[in-house]
Amino acid sequence: MPLSSSIQTVGFVGTGVMGRSMAGHLLDAGCALRVHNRTRDKAADLLRRGATWCATPGEAAAGSDVVFTIVGYPRDVEEVYQGADGLLARARPGTVLVDMTTSSPELARRLAAAGSTRGVEVLDAPVTGGDKGAREATLTILVGGSAAAFERVRPLLAAIGRNIVRFGDSGAGQHAKLANQIAIAGTLQGVCEAMAYARGAGLDAGQVLAAIAGGAAASWQLQNLGPKMLSGDFAPGFYVKHLIKDLELALAEGARAGLDLPSLRLALERYRELAAAGGAEQGTQALFRLYGAA
Amino acid sequence: MPLSSSIQTVGFVGTGVMGRSMAGHLLDAGCALRVHNRTRDKAADLLRRGATWCATPGEAAAGSDVVFTIVGYPRDVEEVYQGADGLLARARPGTVLVDMTTSSPELARRLAAAGSTRGVEVLDAPVTGGDKGAREATLTILVGGSAAAFERVRPLLAAIGRNIVRFGDSGAGQHAKLANQIAIAGTLQGVCEAMAYARGAGLDAGQVLAAIAGGAAASWQLQNLGPKMLSGDFAPGFYVKHLIKDLELALAEGARAGLDLPSLRLALERYRELAAAGGAEQGTQALFRLYGAA
Repeated sequence: MPLSSSIQTVGFVGTGVMGRSMAGHLLDAGCALRVHNRTRDKAADLLRRGATWCATPGEAAAGSDVVFTIVGYPRDVEEVYQGADGLLARARPGTVLVDMTTSSPELARRLAAAGSTRGVEVLDAPVTGGDKGAREATLTILVGGSAAAFERVRPLLAAIGRNIVRFGDSGAGQHAKLANQIAIAGTLQGVCEAMAYARGAGLDAGQVLAAIAGGAAASWQLQNLGPKMLSGDFAPGFYVKHLIKDLELALAEGARAGLDLPSLRLALERYRELAAAGGAEQGTQALFRLYGAA
Repeated sequence: MPLSSSIQTVGFVGTGVMGRSMAGHLLDAGCALRVHNRTRDKAADLLRRGATWCATPGEAAAGSDVVFTIVGYPRDVEEVYQGADGLLARARPGTVLVDMTTSSPELARRLAAAGSTRGVEVLDAPVTGGDKGAREATLTILVGGSAAAFERVRPLLAAIGRNIVRFGDSGAGQHAKLANQIAIAGTLQGVCEAMAYARGAGLDAGQVLAAIAGGAAASWQLQNLGPKMLSGDFAPGFYVKHLIKDLELALAEGARAGLDLPSLRLALERYRELAAAGGAEQGTQALFRLYGAA
């Protein structure tokens, strides 16, 4: 009997923009879904489609074979897993808990250790690909934790994402995700400054973007966020406040490894400046505002 | 009679790695080629294929309808155009001079003004796409200068590149190229730091690269230079010393436009540090050396 057919009941904690789409794919795949979210409204569509409402994370874990979580900040992860009616208090032995929040590698290791004392496996499995990737089930899923637990949940991950990679033990998925965010932060700064320069020089920045986007300056950020910068569309996609959280984690972990990462440090400083200027709830392309060109 | 068929004799000054390939395409297109280079050896192949050797830039201009130049630094451009036996001294009225060096927008404007007093047109037309683009005639060519002169040389540019865009008057091509270099510099820093972080965290950095290269962290730099960083291959492609020149130009021009470009400033500082550590003749991916991870 394939493992996947033995997985019947799946908990899902965190039905924000990303989580809602992901949980929907699990419903489509035939899972019995137990959902919890801080704000019940955001789970309404899933409940209409047959999911069971749970008043606490612990309730979502009760009777579940696997529980997915995707919440905001490491402190939220800690609360969901280790709070009074949290996942670790209620998950039965043999359950696999999968945290898809971009969070701290150190916390991932701590939760996995706490789980193991109760016979519960905890994987870290942050994702990339944004709301579009979540909607279309094309996310990249970056996994850390035991190989056995990974194999058990792989069929469920395959319902959510397309490119699913395990990098090593607990925390390795978070590390891979933070590497991703570091690359993005550097690229974004380059794109903003290139566009600001083009405007400052009196060029048609959109024409410059189109000309250089096919060569050595090409990037996802240039192609997707460059046009938004130039049109003054700063609506989120990916929130500035969340990128700040990720860059803070990356900088702390880099320092722990003895690395000096000045471009990352600069990006964090600039994004904090943007947040202080009222940009926390905007999309990451709003960095362009700091260049006075928008 | 199409304009292109009236262009018979073409001068070419600067037969380094890029120039040699580009001049070769002009020979293939049927031009009578007059070539000059500081080191004659580097023109040997073109001379064997029928090009005429010229001892000075001025000689290459004598009798030419169009002259292309691609040399090292703005001071070299100045010497080639305004030196004792330079292009402007010898080009006959009606000639179009096309500088493909990545150089100063201000110098481009100055040369165009100097040309116009003699009835000679000067275009700035720096390229992107590297030695591969030069070999395969797939360069992007970023043009500034008069629309009429641009139309006259467009058939020749089409023999060298694929994506040919005029951005405005003299200097606009250089500005567009500098915007390109600014985007590259930011992206490169992000890629280096992401790969250094991944290694520092104990991950297989090549596995991280492969996983993130298809998503929001995707860039030409990550895909093409990331693997070279990780394998310790720092051979040039694009020289560190030339990127430093470009970033110096970009920073000066940005300041002139009243822009503060901190990511660009950081990149210049870091590349100078790399050059001081013996990296000037390496490829731009050698920035990775500064992270102690190679």
